Amino acid sequence: MHVIIDLCVVPLGVGVSVSAEIAACQREIQASGLEYRMHAYGTNIEGPWDEVMAVVKRCHEVVHEMGAPRITTTLKLGTRTDRDQRMDDKVASVETLLGEQ
Amino acid sequence: MHVIIDLCVVPLGVGVSVSAEIAACQREIQASGLEYRMHAYGTNIEGPWDEVMAVVKRCHEVVHEMGAPRITTTLKLGTRTDRDQRMDDKVASVETLLGEQ
Amino acid sequence: MHVIIDLCVVPLGVGVSVSAEIAACQREIQASGLEYRMHAYGTNIEGPWDEVMAVVKRCHEVVHEMGAPRITTTLKLGTRTDRDQRMDDKVASVETLLGEQ
Amino acid sequence: MHVIIDLCVVPLGVGVSVSAEIAACQREIQASGLEYRMHAYGTNIEGPWDEVMAVVKRCHEVVHEMGAPRITTTLKLGTRTDRDQRMDDKVASVETLLGEQ
Repeated sequence: MHVIIDLCVVPLGVGVSVSAEIAACQREIQASGLEYRMHAYGTNIEGPWDEVMAVVKRCHEVVHEMGAPRITTTLKLGTRTDRDQRMDDKVASVETLLGEQ
Repeated sequence: MHVIIDLCVVPLGVGVSVSAEIAACQREIQASGLEYRMHAYGTNIEGPWDEVMAVVKRCHEVVHEMGAPRITTTLKLGTRTDRDQRMDDKVASVETLLGEQ
Repeated sequence: MHVIIDLCVVPLGVGVSVSAEIAACQREIQASGLEYRMHAYGTNIEGPWDEVMAVVKRCHEVVHEMGAPRITTTLKLGTRTDRDQRMDDKVASVETLLGEQ
Repeated sequence: MHVIIDLCVVPLGVGVSVSAEIAACQREIQASGLEYRMHAYGTNIEGPWDEVMAVVKRCHEVVHEMGAPRITTTLKLGTRTDRDQRMDDKVASVETLLGEQ
């Protein structure tokens, strides 16, 4: 089962800046070899369900190891069985419609 | 790693009513033996990370098996290492503060 | 336009416990007179769109006034035009299906 | 109050493809004049709270006008009072840390 997720990890109890923890998550995502795109409020990742979810778990583990006592994560998960669709296809199909306007 | 999640599964391509699919997810959650509380916009579930995430995956599988070609799920995930906290503790700590007002 | 939301306000930079801020949000929600139900990972609120969104804004204002330098909120918003549906109807329709099992 | 949001509008009851509705939302966002970045699982938008939230409402109105009987939206909202921060700053601060690795 292929999944496209949008992952937003929020460490609590580490102060107002969370960029060190987010960078650590990015390194885990990169290390996984999965396709990903970072944006201003999360990161899109895609691949086989178990591999993608292993990265989400690894992010929690790493951020706790860095000293964050608490984490709250928001995740969106999309799966479909009617056809193969990648992250870039989703953006392209909307942009095509906008271009035809 | 103990996790408290809030799970909201949304099947697409099955029409405007999604209660049959949500009920099927509830049966998977019940069958898992994990603690859960349904509310009007999702279900809180808690337990060991891998067990909880296996239920989330099982929900996607079951809803696709029912015929939904596409699913988009929203998930919140909370973990903490500073202390043991259960779903009911979270509600109770806020209600205590409200009562002291 | 009637809306049912699920609101989860997360203050950053206030330490690991956020229950004082959540309690302050609950007081704003109560003061609004809107229907609501708190759960372990947020609060369901329903009513006219503008009134509900005014409460969400008020929560951000109050939590900043309490000293939180940063807030990240997760919100789900449901609207429908095919029929009138309340929070309790959503739960009841799933429970009816589960009972018929 | 400046806000950065991540908006993901999901129409129900319109079939499995939702790109026409998402394109209509993109046109509303463009028409607002606010800064935005589309990604594979939503759109980041930033600006004054009331202007940003007016666009979210307009998206629901437009998608219902197109015939969707039901919409479920997921929204993340970030505000901060300690400093002025834009969408591009958030990405840049993480990328700087990754580059220093």
